[in-house]
Amino acid sequence: MAIVLKLIAFTPNAANVVAASAKLCYSPSGAADILEGLDSKKIESFLKMLNETGHMSPFEHVSYTFAIEGISRVATHQLVRHRLASYSQQSQRYVEMNVPSCIVPPSILENEYALEIFQKQVDFTWECYKKLVLLGIAKEDARFILPHGAESRIVVTMNARELHLFFSLRLCKRAQWEIREVARQMFMLVRKASPELFVTGGPSCIVNGTCEEAHPCGDPYSSLENMLSK
Amino acid sequence: MAIVLKLIAFTPNAANVVAASAKLCYSPSGAADILEGLDSKKIESFLKMLNETGHMSPFEHVSYTFAIEGISRVATHQLVRHRLASYSQQSQRYVEMNVPSCIVPPSILENEYALEIFQKQVDFTWECYKKLVLLGIAKEDARFILPHGAESRIVVTMNARELHLFFSLRLCKRAQWEIREVARQMFMLVRKASPELFVTGGPSCIVNGTCEEAHPCGDPYSSLENMLSK
Amino acid sequence: MAIVLKLIAFTPNAANVVAASAKLCYSPSGAADILEGLDSKKIESFLKMLNETGHMSPFEHVSYTFAIEGISRVATHQLVRHRLASYSQQSQRYVEMNVPSCIVPPSILENEYALEIFQKQVDFTWECYKKLVLLGIAKEDARFILPHGAESRIVVTMNARELHLFFSLRLCKRAQWEIREVARQMFMLVRKASPELFVTGGPSCIVNGTCEEAHPCGDPYSSLENMLSK
Amino acid sequence: MAIVLKLIAFTPNAANVVAASAKLCYSPSGAADILEGLDSKKIESFLKMLNETGHMSPFEHVSYTFAIEGISRVATHQLVRHRLASYSQQSQRYVEMNVPSCIVPPSILENEYALEIFQKQVDFTWECYKKLVLLGIAKEDARFILPHGAESRIVVTMNARELHLFFSLRLCKRAQWEIREVARQMFMLVRKASPELFVTGGPSCIVNGTCEEAHPCGDPYSSLENMLSK
Repeated sequence: MAIVLKLIAFTPNAANVVAASAKLCYSPSGAADILEGLDSKKIESFLKMLNETGHMSPFEHVSYTFAIEGISRVATHQLVRHRLASYSQQSQRYVEMNVPSCIVPPSILENEYALEIFQKQVDFTWECYKKLVLLGIAKEDARFILPHGAESRIVVTMNARELHLFFSLRLCKRAQWEIREVARQMFMLVRKASPELFVTGGPSCIVNGTCEEAHPCGDPYSSLENMLSK
Repeated sequence: MAIVLKLIAFTPNAANVVAASAKLCYSPSGAADILEGLDSKKIESFLKMLNETGHMSPFEHVSYTFAIEGISRVATHQLVRHRLASYSQQSQRYVEMNVPSCIVPPSILENEYALEIFQKQVDFTWECYKKLVLLGIAKEDARFILPHGAESRIVVTMNARELHLFFSLRLCKRAQWEIREVARQMFMLVRKASPELFVTGGPSCIVNGTCEEAHPCGDPYSSLENMLSK
Repeated sequence: MAIVLKLIAFTPNAANVVAASAKLCYSPSGAADILEGLDSKKIESFLKMLNETGHMSPFEHVSYTFAIEGISRVATHQLVRHRLASYSQQSQRYVEMNVPSCIVPPSILENEYALEIFQKQVDFTWECYKKLVLLGIAKEDARFILPHGAESRIVVTMNARELHLFFSLRLCKRAQWEIREVARQMFMLVRKASPELFVTGGPSCIVNGTCEEAHPCGDPYSSLENMLSK
Repeated sequence: MAIVLKLIAFTPNAANVVAASAKLCYSPSGAADILEGLDSKKIESFLKMLNETGHMSPFEHVSYTFAIEGISRVATHQLVRHRLASYSQQSQRYVEMNVPSCIVPPSILENEYALEIFQKQVDFTWECYKKLVLLGIAKEDARFILPHGAESRIVVTMNARELHLFFSLRLCKRAQWEIREVARQMFMLVRKASPELFVTGGPSCIVNGTCEEAHPCGDPYSSLENMLSK
């Protein structure tokens, strides 16, 4: 029941598209011509300039679509608050929940007594859920007793600009552990798909070298690798 | 624990603002001058024209802010999917849940056996939640077992254009009962605040006189009053 | 100086991504598994269902990026009003305009006298622009006299849902001729890239068979082919 | 023909609405109760906390609507690129332009030779425009020769969060003079309407005390008053 992310679609040649779109703003040539004339060195220097000037709008032209499983409704409720993104989520209204699935927070997993209470509660809850359905209560009403940690599945699409914002907020150690794990896996996937666009990323301790939070965690990441290791 | 909505803020003279903004598009005068020259008859005829032509963008200039209590997390998860809106929600991460509150769906309230199962489950859940907190589990992790129907509180702001879209989707009888009740109360509140902007509204059975759903409910509203009565 | 559009990037296997995302909502399986199990027949039937039910949100997961040349600033000012899209536009602030380029509306092209006036004005304007620049006036200020029809270049990205909305508004015969030509070329390009997602599209005379405009043009399209032929 | 802004509508008691919405997130009480219990001191301390933590989302609940006259189409084209806002603009398609209006950039106004060229060009242009209309060319086509600096009128609505972002970008000395003047007047108007929400604002030289631009202007504002004086 661990969170699993798959990158199911993304814009090909993303770095070229971003660089050509950006170059268009300052060049008398058209985007298609610019695109043809690009080589990896020009792309690199252009992307460096964009990062330095904070001119991030060309990053919007490329998008990434993730299929997420093993995620709680706690985390999807947080996730969908990012409004500049697209979502398709498994419906508890229409899909019957057969398996007593509930994401277990690590702090509970590591605590024998807590885990026992947790398991009992989850088992009892699924028993009650099934009874309610048998009594003829519609799935959409029976689910009111399902745990907030019940497993869900969601497809999410974000463009590269929104992803960078998402990483700056959700890879911070002060973010909730579950959405932080989502962000960590997303970062690794997009970094592999479009390395030029994600040379860096994450909270300001990584990107700017200093924490800008009002209430710092006191334990900033030591490096990008440190941030991306589980 | 019934849903309670209060309209805590809205744009004053909303109909005038919408009419003046719309008129600006077709007039050589400025908006401030137009605003001064408006009377209720001109406003009415202008708003009628906007409704007929579907030129809804001027409705975006006025906004309504609602405080909602007694709403389940099931419904807030649906609500925040409307991305052209602003939200502030009570945090289960920071606020300890003391009261064993869970919204009871009417179908369960009306079924003696179902209600008994429901109550037992809710009581047991809150007992477990308290035990977990006592064991030192953080509120943000203990809440994984809280029911999806747990009561929440949320402030939501939408402009009049988005509200009309919201009403068309969420006042339909095929919408979930809880968000439909939210929409019903919202409609009554904005209708009182800005009657000229909400002369009509709701699903197409009300607005256009015919159902446009692929899977009609088979029991369309007979009138606006019928839609707004509980 | 005719409008030229190129599709410089788009999500591969777009129909599969849309269908899998949609199916996820109603299925106990995960999106990645669904994606693998799809064949062209299942995709077709799923997309048909989405179109019929108006459940268009899965169309947001796939995006299309166009490079546009030979477009006037009149049209780009209209274009960028579509807020659910991303833009990179050639800057008149930074790029010096050397060529006396101004898009010529067909109604002027076909009118000998009008064309003569138009040409004189454009030539005179570019002469003045060059003089101002020589006098040391910054490009960003000299451009105030440039014609609103001056040629621009822009990169635009829209997802498939927004594209369908764009086509419904901008392929209508009542839309301005230039943005309508942009929409026409866009439609032909995406139809080629992802035929399953753009089986139909355009104003309601095409999609629903009847005009829903308050002020109909009186000459609805006779067919999709008719709409897409110049 | 100077830019004139009027604040034609805004959310009343804006500071209270923002503070109550923010407090809701961390409090077991409902928003309506919180709103009643607020006094000016509590509001102040809450807003201070929001500014320090960068928790800006509650600022979205309150909106401001401006009527702008004497603004060029150069500036409105920039303005409408801010997508989290609502616009109604005077149409050149429908409204006939009778007056030879063109915004004159200060750099041209101060240069005798440039001004002469500018005036000649504008006069000649309006002459041609009128001739084209007389020849039967539709206004929507004749306007292709109108100067990009032609005067326009627009109504714009932004919420307080977006306004803060707008001020940070457009009050910077590197912004174009005209949109900077728009931002300056906006700031003065909202500061008067809701002083608690706009105690500070503008580019980082004002808000953070240091420039964060990649290419600094070299002449940062010395104070908020300095920024707001023309």
